[in-house]
Amino acid sequence: VPFNIACGSCRSCNQGWTSFCERTNPTEGMQGAAYGYANMGPYAGGQAEYLRVPFADFNLLPLPPGTEHENDFTMLSDIFPTAWHGTVLAGIRPGDAVAVFGCGPVGLLAAHSALIQGAREVFSVDFHDDRLKLAESIGATPIDIRAGDPVEQILETTGGTGADCGVEAVGWQAHDPSGSEHPELVLDNLVGSVKVHGGIGVVGVYVPEDPDAPSEPAKEGRIPFEYGQFFTKGQRMGTGQAPVKRYNAELRDLIVAGRANPGFLVSHELGLDEAPDAYARFDAREDGWTKVLLHPHG
Amino acid sequence: VPFNIACGSCRSCNQGWTSFCERTNPTEGMQGAAYGYANMGPYAGGQAEYLRVPFADFNLLPLPPGTEHENDFTMLSDIFPTAWHGTVLAGIRPGDAVAVFGCGPVGLLAAHSALIQGAREVFSVDFHDDRLKLAESIGATPIDIRAGDPVEQILETTGGTGADCGVEAVGWQAHDPSGSEHPELVLDNLVGSVKVHGGIGVVGVYVPEDPDAPSEPAKEGRIPFEYGQFFTKGQRMGTGQAPVKRYNAELRDLIVAGRANPGFLVSHELGLDEAPDAYARFDAREDGWTKVLLHPHG
Amino acid sequence: VPFNIACGSCRSCNQGWTSFCERTNPTEGMQGAAYGYANMGPYAGGQAEYLRVPFADFNLLPLPPGTEHENDFTMLSDIFPTAWHGTVLAGIRPGDAVAVFGCGPVGLLAAHSALIQGAREVFSVDFHDDRLKLAESIGATPIDIRAGDPVEQILETTGGTGADCGVEAVGWQAHDPSGSEHPELVLDNLVGSVKVHGGIGVVGVYVPEDPDAPSEPAKEGRIPFEYGQFFTKGQRMGTGQAPVKRYNAELRDLIVAGRANPGFLVSHELGLDEAPDAYARFDAREDGWTKVLLHPHG
Amino acid sequence: VPFNIACGSCRSCNQGWTSFCERTNPTEGMQGAAYGYANMGPYAGGQAEYLRVPFADFNLLPLPPGTEHENDFTMLSDIFPTAWHGTVLAGIRPGDAVAVFGCGPVGLLAAHSALIQGAREVFSVDFHDDRLKLAESIGATPIDIRAGDPVEQILETTGGTGADCGVEAVGWQAHDPSGSEHPELVLDNLVGSVKVHGGIGVVGVYVPEDPDAPSEPAKEGRIPFEYGQFFTKGQRMGTGQAPVKRYNAELRDLIVAGRANPGFLVSHELGLDEAPDAYARFDAREDGWTKVLLHPHG
Repeated sequence: VPFNIACGSCRSCNQGWTSFCERTNPTEGMQGAAYGYANMGPYAGGQAEYLRVPFADFNLLPLPPGTEHENDFTMLSDIFPTAWHGTVLAGIRPGDAVAVFGCGPVGLLAAHSALIQGAREVFSVDFHDDRLKLAESIGATPIDIRAGDPVEQILETTGGTGADCGVEAVGWQAHDPSGSEHPELVLDNLVGSVKVHGGIGVVGVYVPEDPDAPSEPAKEGRIPFEYGQFFTKGQRMGTGQAPVKRYNAELRDLIVAGRANPGFLVSHELGLDEAPDAYARFDAREDGWTKVLLHPHG
Repeated sequence: VPFNIACGSCRSCNQGWTSFCERTNPTEGMQGAAYGYANMGPYAGGQAEYLRVPFADFNLLPLPPGTEHENDFTMLSDIFPTAWHGTVLAGIRPGDAVAVFGCGPVGLLAAHSALIQGAREVFSVDFHDDRLKLAESIGATPIDIRAGDPVEQILETTGGTGADCGVEAVGWQAHDPSGSEHPELVLDNLVGSVKVHGGIGVVGVYVPEDPDAPSEPAKEGRIPFEYGQFFTKGQRMGTGQAPVKRYNAELRDLIVAGRANPGFLVSHELGLDEAPDAYARFDAREDGWTKVLLHPHG
Repeated sequence: VPFNIACGSCRSCNQGWTSFCERTNPTEGMQGAAYGYANMGPYAGGQAEYLRVPFADFNLLPLPPGTEHENDFTMLSDIFPTAWHGTVLAGIRPGDAVAVFGCGPVGLLAAHSALIQGAREVFSVDFHDDRLKLAESIGATPIDIRAGDPVEQILETTGGTGADCGVEAVGWQAHDPSGSEHPELVLDNLVGSVKVHGGIGVVGVYVPEDPDAPSEPAKEGRIPFEYGQFFTKGQRMGTGQAPVKRYNAELRDLIVAGRANPGFLVSHELGLDEAPDAYARFDAREDGWTKVLLHPHG
Repeated sequence: VPFNIACGSCRSCNQGWTSFCERTNPTEGMQGAAYGYANMGPYAGGQAEYLRVPFADFNLLPLPPGTEHENDFTMLSDIFPTAWHGTVLAGIRPGDAVAVFGCGPVGLLAAHSALIQGAREVFSVDFHDDRLKLAESIGATPIDIRAGDPVEQILETTGGTGADCGVEAVGWQAHDPSGSEHPELVLDNLVGSVKVHGGIGVVGVYVPEDPDAPSEPAKEGRIPFEYGQFFTKGQRMGTGQAPVKRYNAELRDLIVAGRANPGFLVSHELGLDEAPDAYARFDAREDGWTKVLLHPHG
């Protein structure tokens, strides 16, 4: 089940943008619906045991029988297509060097996605040892922010050119190793580390308003990143939630063929009743808790 | 002669990005060169009588003999390709409704470019009567900012959907009808008036630093536009100087075939010695001075 | 109503290829369904008064109320999207010179489609005076086969380069002015008149078997066109029935905006009971019978 | 050195089609030049010890110092870009199943190229044991023609759907295991084994005339393949010589990064004086002679 809920018939769906379905979100002026997501319509239960699926004929994806790739398939409903979408928004091409900011679940799968598509090198940027280690284990080059400015590290490795494209997998709650929030930090780093006329795909979430943001502009969803530099370098930027259905059949096939294995993320498999504790540990970024799978009858 | 100066052999040129030639700008860390443009290399004379053309074999464009389309051809060195590039960065497709902010020379030619490519409607936004009239004369729908919020005007005309894509042809010195500068104004308006998952092409200039900017962030080239809204709508944005050579042969052919006539812009043809006066009038946006052509032997 | 019948949920539909829906054609091994077309499923009545529409929620296209563009809208169910698809398969780009072989309804609308998308010139090739005149009336350059080899005419007009791309709107029953059938004639002409690395879109119908074909290979759907020349010129070719739903909303909008008016084709409007006679006249290519509209209550 | 010779300034070069350079081939009516290729201009010596390189500044590709990847780099001048071009012409997308007909050097590198770009599976079709074994060693699924109709084998493996796209790496001298020539054999097989609306990239050579061809049409370069089936399936086909310069910088980088290693092909390294004997063995498809490298001072 994709996390988007789409009708399959409106103009957005018709063009492959199920994430902006014009029909399934009854909120005035909003397009696109999802399970358990603020302002995305009355669809509860993104992680419940049973789920009501509207327009099921359109939204459901058939999976092969058996349990062989079960952990991998679980990633198909949200984070693997989201990560893949990030690389597509970035305009990735085979042979590219790709900078991925963030080694959370989406960032790690963006690195995985880039390598599947023929990236020659992926720079995975973070400051948690366990995540950087996981990035390295799938073939990415870990860039540790604590070791110095990531932009300089990437420019140096690429002979001053920068990465060919980049993915933002952090979001507006970006913070530095000391814990301070800097909503514009990751975008500045991407503009700096991606080459001229390169593309940037943004799938880390940014919100139109946030009363708890650290500055006045940020409260209105304004992010004062280095736009002049962005323009001068002639870069492109694509953003937004992934239209899951555009990718999930191909990603399923890559999993079945053994060429994608996003289940490498899973560090813990727990019962649904253990979820609250697990969420707390994940939010605290406790060492080794990269991704938790919840089983209805764990 | 394109305003870019490119070598034709480096990786950027090879990929069609002559605006980011890796060789012709000797400034450390800069890519791309141009005539008479700050930080774009030691090439004087964008509007001089004679011009030294490096890598002429690669950069020059052959024109047919005669003087028939002379005013049209003059637009090929810079503003017509720049305007066209804006529509390409916006991801224009036939049948689109396109919002063009700014009815200066580039904005008007962006409207012209969009209509040539099959736009079903172009909204040309400005607040000068002569420019809005010129926009209307080429088939665009004029949107007068003085008559109300342009976002609301465009949303209303499109049944609430917004334009399919948009072009920014104003730049960081955007000001409202009262004359105050608001660097983020036009970007906010584009995010508001373009539909979900629509594209925005930015060819109005934004600079990395501007000591005279009205705010601290803007001095560092930071533009705090409504990024949260941009992300939530899943929009795309492409920016930067046009790689003139990618477009100028096709645009020349469209002119010769009578399907493009960018010379409609020209309001005045003057001698080179009258240039200083003309610049003053153009900068003051004096009524009727839309575009001035300078002749060496005027 | 598109002439394709599609489910909206299978993989083909999901990728925008409703013309190859995997579900609506129950014939073993066939994909894609249509009204009143051999081997395209049990759906009668492409031109009946009432129609059963399966998966109507997905297949129907809303039209604005009123009768203003009625003749234009009628073209949306089949021939306008088919003609447009031909230009897309050809890889048309703004500024292109386009060779369209055939001035029947689809060929004329392919010329119309190309001009809407910014073609600098369209060569419309045929040998019937009324059709050539109609082509000229919409801005195309008529090429009369009776006046000489069309390839030479097109090469001469383009300075020896050839057209940038081409559309085949004739089909396997191509015949020369004398009435002999030559299934490979039009493909040979397209290969000859399109430039190196140019694209060719084929929407004139070719069938896998035809017992009445003039030669043994042709009976098996084999068309011995000049493939060696095609390869040496590095050309591309796209074929097949149009996925109507991919285009019809945009084309409707172009009609409403007044930028497309495919109804120019209509030469006769008749009642449904006059259809047999009209078909006879159309098949005989009687002078002036370019396109007939059938009204249920004519 | 690419095998194409291109000027870097004409319209074809400007658009990235160096294989159809308008200037370097002085033959009347021909575009594109190459070393040691019939009708491609007066440039001898594709395999000589020293080479005159016209427009060297544009055509030469810088390589890193050292001999580490020497065998891999040798493939950059012709067959690796040609093979890669085949997958691009086929419109390959990540997750595709790809049918590659022919396991000669170009066919094997096409399989390698497809896997680098994220193909989920590659079917490599041939009837020589050593070649099929080599295909298997790089991760492709070998399809042995001697074991049965390759179309049926591929349809069966893909549940009746067929491959998503296909590459022709054989050419007009296609022969069956018994040694008879059938110029249309491979194209028929591709049309049969590729799915509806799938793409086919043809890089095996077809010539405009061949006095020794087995049939009259084939002597004129006419290949009577199953065109009706091709059209009914709505397939696309791209053809022609590769514009080497469009790909070789990226492919070099993939080699340096260790993600491409086309040198796996090399079975023998010989001195230039051993060339005649080696050619004879290669032409006879002697077992184990997949690709021979000639060293000037072997």
